[in-house]
Amino acid sequence: MDYQGKFGEALEALTIEGRYRVFADILRRRGDFPCAVHHTPEGTKPITVWCSNDYLGMGQHPSVLAAMHEAIDTVGAGSGGTRNISGTTHYHVELERELASLHGKEAALLFTSGYVSNDATLSTLVKILKGAVIFSDEKNHNSMIEGIRHGGGPKRVWRHNDLEHLETLLQEYDNDTPKIIAFESVYSMDGDIAPINEICDLAEKYNAFTYIDEVHAVGMYGDHGAGVCERDNAMHRIDIIEATLAKGFGLMGGYIASTAKVIDAIRSYAPGFIFSTSLAPVICAGAIASVRHLKQSNVEREKHQLNAALLKERLALENLPVMHTPSHIVPVLVGDPVQCKQLTDQLLDRFGIYVQPINYPTVSRGTERIRLTPGPLHNEAQMEHLVKSLRTLWNEMGLRNGYDWCQLWRGRIAVAGQFELGVAAGG
Amino acid sequence: MDYQGKFGEALEALTIEGRYRVFADILRRRGDFPCAVHHTPEGTKPITVWCSNDYLGMGQHPSVLAAMHEAIDTVGAGSGGTRNISGTTHYHVELERELASLHGKEAALLFTSGYVSNDATLSTLVKILKGAVIFSDEKNHNSMIEGIRHGGGPKRVWRHNDLEHLETLLQEYDNDTPKIIAFESVYSMDGDIAPINEICDLAEKYNAFTYIDEVHAVGMYGDHGAGVCERDNAMHRIDIIEATLAKGFGLMGGYIASTAKVIDAIRSYAPGFIFSTSLAPVICAGAIASVRHLKQSNVEREKHQLNAALLKERLALENLPVMHTPSHIVPVLVGDPVQCKQLTDQLLDRFGIYVQPINYPTVSRGTERIRLTPGPLHNEAQMEHLVKSLRTLWNEMGLRNGYDWCQLWRGRIAVAGQFELGVAAGG
Ligand SMILES: Cc1ncc(COP(=O)(O)O)c(C=O)c1O
Ligand SMILES: Cc1ncc(COP(=O)(O)O)c(C=O)c1O
Repeated sequence: MDYQGKFGEALEALTIEGRYRVFADILRRRGDFPCAVHHTPEGTKPITVWCSNDYLGMGQHPSVLAAMHEAIDTVGAGSGGTRNISGTTHYHVELERELASLHGKEAALLFTSGYVSNDATLSTLVKILKGAVIFSDEKNHNSMIEGIRHGGGPKRVWRHNDLEHLETLLQEYDNDTPKIIAFESVYSMDGDIAPINEICDLAEKYNAFTYIDEVHAVGMYGDHGAGVCERDNAMHRIDIIEATLAKGFGLMGGYIASTAKVIDAIRSYAPGFIFSTSLAPVICAGAIASVRHLKQSNVEREKHQLNAALLKERLALENLPVMHTPSHIVPVLVGDPVQCKQLTDQLLDRFGIYVQPINYPTVSRGTERIRLTPGPLHNEAQMEHLVKSLRTLWNEMGLRNGYDWCQLWRGRIAVAGQFELGVAAGG
Repeated sequence: MDYQGKFGEALEALTIEGRYRVFADILRRRGDFPCAVHHTPEGTKPITVWCSNDYLGMGQHPSVLAAMHEAIDTVGAGSGGTRNISGTTHYHVELERELASLHGKEAALLFTSGYVSNDATLSTLVKILKGAVIFSDEKNHNSMIEGIRHGGGPKRVWRHNDLEHLETLLQEYDNDTPKIIAFESVYSMDGDIAPINEICDLAEKYNAFTYIDEVHAVGMYGDHGAGVCERDNAMHRIDIIEATLAKGFGLMGGYIASTAKVIDAIRSYAPGFIFSTSLAPVICAGAIASVRHLKQSNVEREKHQLNAALLKERLALENLPVMHTPSHIVPVLVGDPVQCKQLTDQLLDRFGIYVQPINYPTVSRGTERIRLTPGPLHNEAQMEHLVKSLRTLWNEMGLRNGYDWCQLWRGRIAVAGQFELGVAAGG
């Protein structure tokens, strides 16, 4: 048995498909984000990051950093244990209280990542709600899909954001079958948003339990940054709200918020929670500061939405195929995996612009794209440079323009003048 | 369908079995570890932690904390992305290099936790080595068991550390079947150590791939802290070494070290790695400092082993049923889940000693125990107080003494005078 050969074959398969990935080695400069430094074998080079999920720049916020310094000075580095065995510090307790209150729930539970929170919670739910059928949106994130698979129960996949299809599937089961509807609020690759209240209407009608992933929404939507459920007045209608501390809040770690009973049961039964060292206190301390800041400040949210709208408008004015999204995510279509990678390589090498190609299987074939994440800290000049550089490369590479994409994909491609630039996310 | 009721029932089942857990809310004081503060509804109280897995106190080490402060000042809080999308910073690259070199391997790969590293790697291995059978030690950690289960391939469980049984199982398969032997070096609840070289002999004889979990050994064994494989001169014989940054190294996060090809394949195929925000740079920076320090310093390892041997000797002298272990882990048998919990409650409330009860399913029924983790920072007076307090409670509660356990469990209970107090772990 040639074990190393088998690993080599697996890698070759990826290379042939054009899916082999090289990670860019970058270093941010505090206070200077979205500026960063790119480390290459030839040396270092200044770049502007346009694909970070530190959406609001909270990973640079002075009060977050101060809280982290203070935690290190107070308690040191790691927690030293699982939550049950010496790894529950006062920072964990406080952060869970803060998150519960943010989402208007009785309790919250921390995990080492958003990935683990989805995986551990969804797989455990099925064990507690015996016989439960999970109704999963077809575009749900890999961590939800894996969690559902690990639970081992029956799963029905409904067409993305399609209420009729969801209802059709729900109708197939009698009232006594436990049902869990699992979906996201903001879908991160298309930037579209689920009809949360309508889904909750169906959940009530068919007596289903609801589970939402607000990973790409917390910090950014709602008057206190509790996400799209807050904005849409639906927090109380959702049974479990799951999210991350790693994107809008700028740190790392994941969590769920729910009733005290649900939290207590997941805490007691989920192996991915029980058998793993808890988050480092320094991370919790930063997250507490970040959540508290965004609870009472709308400035970041407003600037974030404004910059996203501005960028979409400028791209549309340049006839670049920017997708029309109701969120802060700005996907620009390329439509070919090799060209997509060439485009981002050129952006980095010639223009100092860092964006990653988004290829299959993250998005479906033929819809390969770049995914821009403008934040409140990007300035006019950086935006101008980005749009001009894209235009240059679009011409050089002969890529399909916005109007041409419009013929193919009417309604989903943005048209200049479409954006209400004054509208705040929190409002 | 009464969903909340179902969660309530699940909790009741735990309570009836005596397995419902309450997390102690504690706060360390930097520079003062193992001293800490216990937060209770009645106020705060000073305690000594005797169950931390920050085994060497590296979570308090000045050079670790300095590196963390510096990273926050240099780059900020979170990484802002998955490893592929803006989440690979220079800290990640450097730490992976450091870990690869520590274990004498070509490459290493970071995960958000040791749990995820086992789960993601083992489940992915089976997909790459199609048709592989996993031979799993019966005492393997939950994260390995789940990883193997998630891989979905065939699994054979061998009796704990039993070479004959392992060989019998290996013999059942022909030479062309890919075989993976998965085991740990130090088993954390019994404190025993696997016969690594003998297992590698079998792997060679039967052409099997080897996977070891050194979570409870890295930092603590070997001349450079690379674990028991280093101490036993077996690093080059193991295909994948997995470990954590959360115990001996004092932070959080997990990793694997292997050939460049294996690392590249796991990096490219493991969803738990791909679809999750990378470790915060501040954590990587602390880990780099910790790994580097323990590579060239034996002081912590020597003091650690000395204190473990001292504590075992004192407990044995007091006729307390301390298990005879070849490692730094000091289990003391109680043999009943309710008494075990009572004991630790009393230790905390009356004596300010923080230890957690270890009950089923973490250990088998009838072997319920407390698990003490003496570190280099525990002093004579704290040890004296611990032993005296245990003796007092043992008398009050009428618990079974060391000699009586000896009758039942000859050879596994320590006898006074058994410990060579001068022997260093690294030597
Ligand atoms: C929708 C969604 N859920 C969960 C996660 C995982 O969260 P985390 O990065 O904290 O592991 C991600 C991506 O990272 C995501 O996009
Ligand atoms: C043997 C073993 N492997 C893996 C883990 C998980 O590591 P981590 O705490 O970094 O998730 C643990 C416990 O925490 C363990 O005891």
